[in-house]
Amino acid sequence: MSRKRRAKKPLAPLSSPGAPTPLLDTIDSPADLKKLTREQLPLLAQELRNEIVRIAAPGGLHLASSLGATDLIVALHYVLNSPRDRIIFDVGHQAYAHKFLTGRRAQMGTVKKEGGLSGFTKVSESPHDAVTVGHASTSLASALGMATARDALGQDYRVAAVIGDGALTGGMALAALNTIGDSGRKMLIVLNDNEMSISENVGAMSQFMRTLQVQKWFQEGEGASKKALSALSKPLSDLMSRAKSSTRHFFDPASINPFAAMGVRYVGPVDGHNIAELVYLIERLGELDGPTILHVVTRKGKGLTYAEEDPIKWHGPSRFDPQTGQSIAAGLPPGDSVPRQSWSAAFGDAVTELSRQDPRVYVITPAMREGSGLVGYSRAHPNRYLDVGIAEDVAVTAAAGMALQGLKPVVAIYSTFLQRAYDQVLHDVAIENLGVVFAVDRGGVVGADGATHNGVFDLSFMRSIPNVRIGLPRTALELRGMLKEALRIGGPVAIRYPRGETTPAPEGTWPELRWGTWERLCACAPGGVTILAGGKALEYAEAAIRDLPGVGLVNARFVKPLDTAMLRELAEGSRALVTAEDNTVVGGFGSAVLEQLSAWGLKTPVRVLGIPDQFQEHASVERVHARSGIDAPAIRTVLAELGVDVPLGV
Amino acid sequence: MSRKRRAKKPLAPLSSPGAPTPLLDTIDSPADLKKLTREQLPLLAQELRNEIVRIAAPGGLHLASSLGATDLIVALHYVLNSPRDRIIFDVGHQAYAHKFLTGRRAQMGTVKKEGGLSGFTKVSESPHDAVTVGHASTSLASALGMATARDALGQDYRVAAVIGDGALTGGMALAALNTIGDSGRKMLIVLNDNEMSISENVGAMSQFMRTLQVQKWFQEGEGASKKALSALSKPLSDLMSRAKSSTRHFFDPASINPFAAMGVRYVGPVDGHNIAELVYLIERLGELDGPTILHVVTRKGKGLTYAEEDPIKWHGPSRFDPQTGQSIAAGLPPGDSVPRQSWSAAFGDAVTELSRQDPRVYVITPAMREGSGLVGYSRAHPNRYLDVGIAEDVAVTAAAGMALQGLKPVVAIYSTFLQRAYDQVLHDVAIENLGVVFAVDRGGVVGADGATHNGVFDLSFMRSIPNVRIGLPRTALELRGMLKEALRIGGPVAIRYPRGETTPAPEGTWPELRWGTWERLCACAPGGVTILAGGKALEYAEAAIRDLPGVGLVNARFVKPLDTAMLRELAEGSRALVTAEDNTVVGGFGSAVLEQLSAWGLKTPVRVLGIPDQFQEHASVERVHARSGIDAPAIRTVLAELGVDVPLGV
Repeated sequence: MSRKRRAKKPLAPLSSPGAPTPLLDTIDSPADLKKLTREQLPLLAQELRNEIVRIAAPGGLHLASSLGATDLIVALHYVLNSPRDRIIFDVGHQAYAHKFLTGRRAQMGTVKKEGGLSGFTKVSESPHDAVTVGHASTSLASALGMATARDALGQDYRVAAVIGDGALTGGMALAALNTIGDSGRKMLIVLNDNEMSISENVGAMSQFMRTLQVQKWFQEGEGASKKALSALSKPLSDLMSRAKSSTRHFFDPASINPFAAMGVRYVGPVDGHNIAELVYLIERLGELDGPTILHVVTRKGKGLTYAEEDPIKWHGPSRFDPQTGQSIAAGLPPGDSVPRQSWSAAFGDAVTELSRQDPRVYVITPAMREGSGLVGYSRAHPNRYLDVGIAEDVAVTAAAGMALQGLKPVVAIYSTFLQRAYDQVLHDVAIENLGVVFAVDRGGVVGADGATHNGVFDLSFMRSIPNVRIGLPRTALELRGMLKEALRIGGPVAIRYPRGETTPAPEGTWPELRWGTWERLCACAPGGVTILAGGKALEYAEAAIRDLPGVGLVNARFVKPLDTAMLRELAEGSRALVTAEDNTVVGGFGSAVLEQLSAWGLKTPVRVLGIPDQFQEHASVERVHARSGIDAPAIRTVLAELGVDVPLGV
Repeated sequence: MSRKRRAKKPLAPLSSPGAPTPLLDTIDSPADLKKLTREQLPLLAQELRNEIVRIAAPGGLHLASSLGATDLIVALHYVLNSPRDRIIFDVGHQAYAHKFLTGRRAQMGTVKKEGGLSGFTKVSESPHDAVTVGHASTSLASALGMATARDALGQDYRVAAVIGDGALTGGMALAALNTIGDSGRKMLIVLNDNEMSISENVGAMSQFMRTLQVQKWFQEGEGASKKALSALSKPLSDLMSRAKSSTRHFFDPASINPFAAMGVRYVGPVDGHNIAELVYLIERLGELDGPTILHVVTRKGKGLTYAEEDPIKWHGPSRFDPQTGQSIAAGLPPGDSVPRQSWSAAFGDAVTELSRQDPRVYVITPAMREGSGLVGYSRAHPNRYLDVGIAEDVAVTAAAGMALQGLKPVVAIYSTFLQRAYDQVLHDVAIENLGVVFAVDRGGVVGADGATHNGVFDLSFMRSIPNVRIGLPRTALELRGMLKEALRIGGPVAIRYPRGETTPAPEGTWPELRWGTWERLCACAPGGVTILAGGKALEYAEAAIRDLPGVGLVNARFVKPLDTAMLRELAEGSRALVTAEDNTVVGGFGSAVLEQLSAWGLKTPVRVLGIPDQFQEHASVERVHARSGIDAPAIRTVLAELGVDVPLGV
């Protein structure tokens, strides 16, 4: 909605990726940056943008937000003294310019690659990265903690947090702001209002923050704030005068906006691409006591015409031609003609169709419409679709409210973000056994986004909650069966699928699937070894035993409850069981099997394969699985250890 | 601070618990209530208060908040039609009057007792209880879900949420408000501003909401809002006129306060003890489209002089004389002269002393100063103490920020509330292995507060997070050893102790304790049975084997990492192991033992005792443990099943 209202302005010239970078070539640290004149900074920013486009062209990086934040990052590093001063980037995916300026230029081609730089800020990567991050809305609490530590230890560095308008509507950010205002601790909060988080922004705060509205607001409040001016110190009065000279921003020191109500000084909105103005403001605001919000308005994709025009598409584009913005299709492996679709799309198709059949189905997303495959759904069923913004807790508890009042809510959520609603699943949904379906996307290792985003804990933390059922579909077709069954049986149900692709299911097909029933894919030879695996791990297990006819294989598609009838039979009939899962080995599927065997008093040996109890650095999904020992070769090694005759070199 | 500013008004007359209740005697449902005249309502409220004091006198109930909300509850039920209209109480501990009015009067003496009524609202207890609840700040998300369901299904009932000023500063509530404002859905949010949550309220929002400030605020904004009045409908104009006639409230329809900025209509503040005014407002506001906040100011402990004067003490008093407010000490068991103190106090003493030794120690609480034993600490170290309000996520991430900048933060938190910061522990603390100590209070079954408050999941969900260490002290002395060791070794460490009492440790004693080392209390006979237990379960195990010299017993005080050297020895030397824990059997300590034995390929049978995979209804701690099969008799039964010669009848 806000985007419609945005005035069409002439777009910035197309950037020139690969062009010479004479200024950037002189910079290896923020200290080098400070040797430039202020007049040179816009040119440096343009060089940085060119370089960002260049490294993003092979695909998979966060492009639009990084371009939008470049001017701001140049200004911050020009004024502040990192690493002594702390610059905290919320989410951390917009900080490529920060990495370029802090000694990592030579490695920028390795971002998100195995052994390379992280796609986010990461403490262990550089002293200039104040926090290790990936999830949204944490920066203000981090800043509160850092400013508190500074004051407690009698130190005097500056703390700055850069938070997007979307992340600021997360409850954790709002709650932190409440304490920050009360604490009165000195810090600078840069509200990077880029008019678009990953999905289109939602919520009343977002509406409020739209520039024109804010200006209207301030004009109304102007009278009151003028009176308050007399209490201001000289530098602030100067600043006020200067602010007045611009028609584009307004400084409201003491009154009448929600930030001021929270006890936080507010300055803005200002043009987030006017580096001179940003430098001027950061210099002065950085010296003020107490917390200050500087509201800057930026444009995602800044400087890259096609990215400015469609920032959602260019949030994290795959491979493209940097000159034209044309996508470059990845070549299909030769001979592979099986149609594929993402798991997210498979879910989106299924729930769209189900909603047609059942008017009580209602889909909720915490700001992940595109990522969760819900663009089609949101168009087909706009009145049964709720985006609550970056607020996973609200998504889950609102779903509980819906379930109590007769709807069949489906919460579409990434595994890593479901971590943020553990208590809401437990307290608001599970205690009363309410019918809420969790479509848990990106379950398991996600690869390039690394440790902050791996969804390798959900089987453990969801399994610990009474009444919760958990299923891992093997195919899009099985996902449909589980979704239909979940809505039929009621209660809290998590259907968990990985990042990546599956074979599409034909429209209208709804296989019957009884919850809690496993599927025997290969019978094991009497007294042999049986593998129990679900989801992605099952794919590896299938590949592992292709030439091993004596090994049993079970699609252990339900992690809670287990198929105890089949498990008992297998445990009694097998020499050993192997469990494999794309989840931590601590408290996951393998532990569920161990717990059940222990309860029965059965002594069948069980080998538990899964993600080790360590955070996994970014690398391709396959590489992390290989390192973790759950891929096909690793499974074959385990089978050999268990006495299975495994041909070498296959 | 706000409490100091509060003007001293004459206190209401002392209530008369046990006095006749002629009006209440006529009421078995909200329909009966509506037969009273409006003039009779204050008298009814006084009867309700008398009855609440009467049932609270034996101790253990939420008294002050229930008295404060009684007038409001009478007004809500007089106007709304429950259960068709939905009244959602945030936290749900203030709703005794609601229970009295909705057909549960005869059972009100059973609140929080086994088999009796819950201390909170509970869907399965009554159709009038809109949600099952216990944790704060969820009501607005619930209301959002319910209003959404109503509109999606074409229904037209009213949805009202009653939320305290403390709970409103929780991030989840603020984030929900953001979406509510955007949704425009019809609902009434009653902000029950009682000027005190459990601890003294903190945060800028709380400051803002103080009545006098709010009135000043509105007076400043009055000019702007007058202009907006012309757009109002007739009923609203009427309301405005009426509001104007009172000097105590002000109706600000369209502008300039944080709620209005979020798109929510704001009315208030009004006297939350003036039932006639409340009825008038709820009748009219309940009919308005869109979301409306009615800000009412109430006094905790209303009508009970001593409770009004010290509402923190009277939040949840133990046994008292209702006429005088004198505490009635529980008699000590005969012959028991061992001094005892609460685990919370043991922690508070220890951390206060440690902070004296180490200036980098910094304690954080999410609004639980009293409950966590921190009153003394907050006085001794006011500059190294932060209360972030009801915002567990902020508490944890602020601690991470402190740890990054050189402090040694200790987050004092109840186990059940730590559930709300699972992601922050994982994402903000554990990935970088930051030195944050979690003092996890109320770990295990808590008894009377029931399913919403039992801390029986922490061993499972904390264990699933890489880098996290977990210890369960057996005594206050061991707690000191763990605390000191945790600060020495760094990294995320959870020290978990139960509700209840322990033997105090002498000041200045700091036992050396290496993390990850168990303690052998009794050696098992060769080839015998060994019990591994920590915390509360260890107490039961000790009692169980008092007359069984051949049974081994280990203080398995570290759940992560396990003492693998001792475990291996025990597993190889014992006929069977028994693990016992005050935690769910899903993914807890027993599973950790099973996982380790499976990794070693050892076949020693393990019996896992713990809380079954079901939510546990309220009852005494001991009763829940008996039902769960972890108390001494249950352990003896298991030992007998494992072939131990257990004398009968002991």
